[in-house]
Amino acid sequence: MMTCVRVKVQTAAETSARTNMADQKKILCVGLVCLDIISVVEEYPEEDTDTRCVSQRWQRGGNASNSCTVLSLLGAPCAFMGSLAAGPVADFILEDFQKFGIDLSLVSEHAQCVSPASVVISNIHTGSRTILHMNRDLPDVTAEDFSRIDLAQFKWIHWEGRNAGEQVKMIQQVEKFNAQLPDRQRIGISVEIEKTREPLYELFPCGDVVFVSKDVARHFGFDSPEAALKGLYPRVKKGAVLICAWAEKGADALGPDGLLLHSDAFPPETLVDTLGAGDTFNAGVLHTLSNGGSVQEALTFGCRIAGRKCGFHGYDGIREK
Amino acid sequence: MMTCVRVKVQTAAETSARTNMADQKKILCVGLVCLDIISVVEEYPEEDTDTRCVSQRWQRGGNASNSCTVLSLLGAPCAFMGSLAAGPVADFILEDFQKFGIDLSLVSEHAQCVSPASVVISNIHTGSRTILHMNRDLPDVTAEDFSRIDLAQFKWIHWEGRNAGEQVKMIQQVEKFNAQLPDRQRIGISVEIEKTREPLYELFPCGDVVFVSKDVARHFGFDSPEAALKGLYPRVKKGAVLICAWAEKGADALGPDGLLLHSDAFPPETLVDTLGAGDTFNAGVLHTLSNGGSVQEALTFGCRIAGRKCGFHGYDGIREK
Repeated sequence: MMTCVRVKVQTAAETSARTNMADQKKILCVGLVCLDIISVVEEYPEEDTDTRCVSQRWQRGGNASNSCTVLSLLGAPCAFMGSLAAGPVADFILEDFQKFGIDLSLVSEHAQCVSPASVVISNIHTGSRTILHMNRDLPDVTAEDFSRIDLAQFKWIHWEGRNAGEQVKMIQQVEKFNAQLPDRQRIGISVEIEKTREPLYELFPCGDVVFVSKDVARHFGFDSPEAALKGLYPRVKKGAVLICAWAEKGADALGPDGLLLHSDAFPPETLVDTLGAGDTFNAGVLHTLSNGGSVQEALTFGCRIAGRKCGFHGYDGIREK
Repeated sequence: MMTCVRVKVQTAAETSARTNMADQKKILCVGLVCLDIISVVEEYPEEDTDTRCVSQRWQRGGNASNSCTVLSLLGAPCAFMGSLAAGPVADFILEDFQKFGIDLSLVSEHAQCVSPASVVISNIHTGSRTILHMNRDLPDVTAEDFSRIDLAQFKWIHWEGRNAGEQVKMIQQVEKFNAQLPDRQRIGISVEIEKTREPLYELFPCGDVVFVSKDVARHFGFDSPEAALKGLYPRVKKGAVLICAWAEKGADALGPDGLLLHSDAFPPETLVDTLGAGDTFNAGVLHTLSNGGSVQEALTFGCRIAGRKCGFHGYDGIREK
């Protein structure tokens, strides 16, 4: 593995001057950005064959990065915090972030690191997406990086579970910040536990809102979102909302009142592209909650835009209403 | 499709001054260059799953481009003729060509075209390679482009069958050039018919050496290289040699004497990467024939280095003896 040298972390102070009014406060998503090279096929290829794609496109990917895209399309000011290598792939990614007006002042660039590309095979007839992930040699954002942020510019911060140990410390910083403020000025905190990796589970007790994936639910032995929520709720902190989306079954949520909430899925007439549907759901939920909507409204809106998104390639087709 | 604007075709005159002596004459390969994004996996992924790759690499690909790489590693001066888009992918490709000392003076760059990437999934345990090709909007080299070449700098010209109509005209130019020369100074002419596309079959009567693929042989209903050579030989021109490689069965050749020649395959102890094995075989054959070797020597050497190549990733492990 190469040694990665961080060449730039802009301090948030450089941009915070711009955000004065409460209703212009941003949603920050902390996590991964990468390049997705998406090959659209008529049929999933058999091993050791040659297939001609219907089309190919390069798309900025990564959960936190995708959620920023959707938030931005929904009209929510947002920022991305994560690391990036230098080079042509990074240039492509930065340009695309800028196209969506996403605040990049918290992106660290690391020279000499390799920008990984995820290879995605997208089946145009079923909407299935098969992903080949690449190991990154990029260091994740640390609690120290995070401590340099001016938190006052954000109304909500969302973490894609990755380097959980550091992320727990970041969340503690936000909780400390929140403690000085009246309730309605506090920064909302959400975490996503998507991968079935033991260290990520220490994020369960950390968020006001915890997104747990179908994969993780199944890994714990639960066969439905209801069972998962009931089984995993004891892990979240007092007062938190646990949310579990389950593809075509829609999504469920469980809060401190013990009431199980549900939204059906809203599948499009034709499934075209399910890549990033989960990130779209998360963005829809965050958008609603950070605007003061109820958990039921957030679930329904999340399912609605995630469903709509599956009807076309990429995200550009998402617009509020 | 975008309109492609050709911004540069260097004339061969710019470089021909360098090649004076007969033994420094080059082998020219006319055909495709593209970017291969190769993801190495432990197991071929099932549809709609997420897999972590063992490794990922970007590699210059395309049949003619690969054959140039191997020729260069075998110590043969060679040149590539083909088209390329502008942009970061093209920069990667050009830099890699230069690393191997391959003459690029006949490469046309087309601004505003998209550089296609082939996505390759390489199974580390079986050596299988699954390829997703992308349609190119790049115009192929034309007979007019070719007419500007100083043919005197080449001892052999190889065509990867693509825009066959134009390629037939290029070959006629070489035949006209050859007609003025004594036998031993003539430029060798070879064509590769790899894809099962009807228009390519008009290349059969064009080369002194014709490579026909297992795919094409099967498309014509032949189940073995012997059957294919006997069945297809009537299509080649008088005096030509027809060659058919058949993976683990080795390769066969049939010339004007009606004698069927054969070489067994030389599989490595462990199959690691079969991507470009066919292009490596072709390069081995061209190298031997252009140095005055016999067809049997060429077959055996082609099989030997193609086999060796399958034992490692990429081409760097190929060195003569």
